[in-house]
Amino acid sequence: MINPRHIFDDELRNLRADLLRMGTLAREAVDKSIKALINRDTSLAEEVIAGDDVIDKMDLDIEMKCMELIARQQPMARDLRTIGTILKTITDLERIADHAVDIAKIVKILADQPPLKPYIDIPRMCELSLSMLDDALKSFVTEDIELAREMCERDDLVDALYNQVFRELLTYMMEDPKAVVRALYLIFVARFLERVADHATNVGERVIYMVTGVLKELNV
Amino acid sequence: MINPRHIFDDELRNLRADLLRMGTLAREAVDKSIKALINRDTSLAEEVIAGDDVIDKMDLDIEMKCMELIARQQPMARDLRTIGTILKTITDLERIADHAVDIAKIVKILADQPPLKPYIDIPRMCELSLSMLDDALKSFVTEDIELAREMCERDDLVDALYNQVFRELLTYMMEDPKAVVRALYLIFVARFLERVADHATNVGERVIYMVTGVLKELNV
Repeated sequence: MINPRHIFDDELRNLRADLLRMGTLAREAVDKSIKALINRDTSLAEEVIAGDDVIDKMDLDIEMKCMELIARQQPMARDLRTIGTILKTITDLERIADHAVDIAKIVKILADQPPLKPYIDIPRMCELSLSMLDDALKSFVTEDIELAREMCERDDLVDALYNQVFRELLTYMMEDPKAVVRALYLIFVARFLERVADHATNVGERVIYMVTGVLKELNV
Repeated sequence: MINPRHIFDDELRNLRADLLRMGTLAREAVDKSIKALINRDTSLAEEVIAGDDVIDKMDLDIEMKCMELIARQQPMARDLRTIGTILKTITDLERIADHAVDIAKIVKILADQPPLKPYIDIPRMCELSLSMLDDALKSFVTEDIELAREMCERDDLVDALYNQVFRELLTYMMEDPKAVVRALYLIFVARFLERVADHATNVGERVIYMVTGVLKELNV
């Protein structure tokens, strides 16, 4: 006799693997977009833009699998919250990949302009945001809510770095009209990275909700 | 004897009503945030910020109802796509409301600074974006894919207006260092309105997918 619980767990394992694959593609897209910015590499930027379709398709594919699994297995309580977490997380991952595309488009705009200054805080913001995303996905797989909580707290660091970058670039804009366009686009880049960290935080908060069932900490 | 199809249709009708209620709150939040900007009304801005919790709760509430409906009724094909559309749309509506909060926060920052210029294009962008959202939600309820297509096309108008606002504000920034901060925040406001139109477009594209089952037009 077939054990439905066993089937459900198998399918959930597959969905988790799909989610991690999508997460890996999204984090790579962000990483590449910042590498493209630093190295003024427009062909890498093009690669990020072209790769977005795959991530959009995975979003729809995983969503359909989630809904079919709910229809077939009628999960309750925590199992339903787990699938709800996957459904929300793929949307966050899709938006993270969109921000990588936003950055890649800026790389193309800035490519024919002289660099404004060496990049210090932006790569640091990228590193921090992606480490948050890594830990958010890890906390989902291991159901480690301590890791999820700790990871969400790091969002304050990213916000602080964003404010620092914002203020610094503002001074460039006020001191030199010729710097305005470049500084403005870099503020956008910093803002997109700050949004990546926000989406990672969404995922972490969802994991806490998935495990505890308590909504209070959720701040979507 | 109870007719499951009848129950499903009833529950779907309730979900649609919930979605429209959430949509109304999200469009009102955006509308109020721009009114607050124009009238330098910080208490209206505070109202928008405080109201966001209600929208976040509706997001989770509708999501849970969708998943429970799938589990109980095991819908197939188009019915499943309809619920998938509701699930994605609530995320777009939640993000639209978040952008209203983003704008409201800027209203508070700009409140103690003299106005840069009379607002012309920003209210126009707001009006256009919200008319797109209205028609996207209407196309969902009436399953009118012609309206959905027509509404998605209007996104180009919003993009054109955004580029116009962006360029104009850029000249302010280059001509007067004292204008930099105000112009930058107004560029952000325009960007958030442009994102509202993008989210409305997401909803319209989803409606087309819901009705036709064809993914090709979908550009999430």
